Amino acid sequence: MSGEPYPARVFIQEVVTRDGLQIEPRFVPTADKIALIDALSDTGVAKIEVTSFVSPKAVPNLADAAEVARAIRRRPGVTYVALVPNLRGAEAALAADLDELNLVMSVSATHNLANMRLTPDQSLEGFRAIVAAARGTRARLNGSIATAFGCPFEGAQPAEKVLGLAAAYLDADLDSITLADTTGMANPRQVADLVAAFRARFGAVPLTLHFHNTRGMGLANVLAALGQGADRFDASLGGLGGCPFAPGATGNISTEDLVHMLEEMGVATGVDLGRLLELARGLPDLLGHDIPGQVAKAGRSGDLHPAPASLRAAS
Amino acid sequence: MSGEPYPARVFIQEVVTRDGLQIEPRFVPTADKIALIDALSDTGVAKIEVTSFVSPKAVPNLADAAEVARAIRRRPGVTYVALVPNLRGAEAALAADLDELNLVMSVSATHNLANMRLTPDQSLEGFRAIVAAARGTRARLNGSIATAFGCPFEGAQPAEKVLGLAAAYLDADLDSITLADTTGMANPRQVADLVAAFRARFGAVPLTLHFHNTRGMGLANVLAALGQGADRFDASLGGLGGCPFAPGATGNISTEDLVHMLEEMGVATGVDLGRLLELARGLPDLLGHDIPGQVAKAGRSGDLHPAPASLRAAS
Repeated sequence: MSGEPYPARVFIQEVVTRDGLQIEPRFVPTADKIALIDALSDTGVAKIEVTSFVSPKAVPNLADAAEVARAIRRRPGVTYVALVPNLRGAEAALAADLDELNLVMSVSATHNLANMRLTPDQSLEGFRAIVAAARGTRARLNGSIATAFGCPFEGAQPAEKVLGLAAAYLDADLDSITLADTTGMANPRQVADLVAAFRARFGAVPLTLHFHNTRGMGLANVLAALGQGADRFDASLGGLGGCPFAPGATGNISTEDLVHMLEEMGVATGVDLGRLLELARGLPDLLGHDIPGQVAKAGRSGDLHPAPASLRAAS
Repeated sequence: MSGEPYPARVFIQEVVTRDGLQIEPRFVPTADKIALIDALSDTGVAKIEVTSFVSPKAVPNLADAAEVARAIRRRPGVTYVALVPNLRGAEAALAADLDELNLVMSVSATHNLANMRLTPDQSLEGFRAIVAAARGTRARLNGSIATAFGCPFEGAQPAEKVLGLAAAYLDADLDSITLADTTGMANPRQVADLVAAFRARFGAVPLTLHFHNTRGMGLANVLAALGQGADRFDASLGGLGGCPFAPGATGNISTEDLVHMLEEMGVATGVDLGRLLELARGLPDLLGHDIPGQVAKAGRSGDLHPAPASLRAAS
């Protein structure tokens, strides 16, 4: 009736054991990570970003990247990904036979320097070295553009700059692109405009949207992207993740809240929401704190309650 | 670029001292309520639902309705509203010279019985008595349709039933309609469809959308309604409010998060977000607990941070 052209099917890409766990105050035991990933493999998600092959000094929580990648069960149909910050990480990810490597740099030079200690040119040079290393392997390469919707240091990033970087990624032979709202600054109009501009310029190049819910706009941004035909979304079980600049603020969009919204809208995800909710409800025990995800607390819209006893007695 | 026809201007209707405070565990002193309403009057919101003239036994937190309505400063241009559950409440609200009375019933008969202890016919009969009592006064009458997007006992409510009730409200001479997602069950596709159907049937009858963020979809639902031209939204400072069926779940959409999203999108609200954020940040002291609103914690998207000292030293 509203005429909104939502996609019929959306692909859910789980990032909790990478983006979620990397900033947790305590180390989640390797066996628990493996068990969580194996359980996520059976929920119907399309892709799991398992870990990041990053320096254990930089991210102690993911020091077990190689062990996790080796030990998880690979379910056919699920794509297993690792984030790789540099050639050394890429080599480790290739040695672990992951399906996909996720390369990342920030479109904001200031953020890239702060986060990766690299200039944009140095990052792109690193990408080309990774592409060369992956040649002849079966690994696909995704390129993430961090701070695509704004940088906490520089502010808004012009769409032309973001699209120009995407073009550089594709020139470097990456297979697909993620536009990442690293610190939750995107708004729905900006999302609709940037997704439309991406589609106009790059046609069918696979595009993922990676949103954070830092300012409450996460699912609204999903809706805006859906309205422009986007059909791949990163999300984090329980809404784990977060931003060092916003203490107390929430993190990535919650996988279970995302799947719940899409399924309520009649958009298929292929995900078993019941299983996902069970896993989300187990996170507080694993982590020792509450989670931002809301459907795990409130239940699904369709979970009905008995009418008050007084009414039932009267009827 | 996305071609989404968002309204250029949206009206923000604050409900925190009614919908927010009514279920708080502790009574907020009358003087604090008055001070909060007076401060909200200076933020630029279009309307404030000040209180509810309800039985103090049913809602002890609002037992001071008459005193609050009498003592607040009436700022020209702001519409001051009270919720009225029945003729006695309406008479009290009229005696307090409020600008608008908000009449409410649930489209779900089960919810109406549970919440108001009235059948739908009894509720409509009550509405007609209130219309008669208000005749000749300057008070406008708004009719709220609770559980318009779903009932926690009955589940989904057919759009035809909701629109039929809106028609009955207008036949009874109410001036405007609110579609209320009382327990946060609405999804964006449903919202877009129902708003479009309302517009098709009732043309320019003033329509308010009242959303809760119980399952994280609050601002996505706003976006869906905006896309169909809706331009009046209820919201609660700090995201206060809630649902007795979802312990730990969040309440109404947060006024400051709503205003932040709209202003970031370039949709004018007339609201001073800085003042609103100051008031939201004062709520934890007033109430003794944290608030669900996220921009009060994370800051606005445009609040930039200094680059790390190491970079500044190097540059």
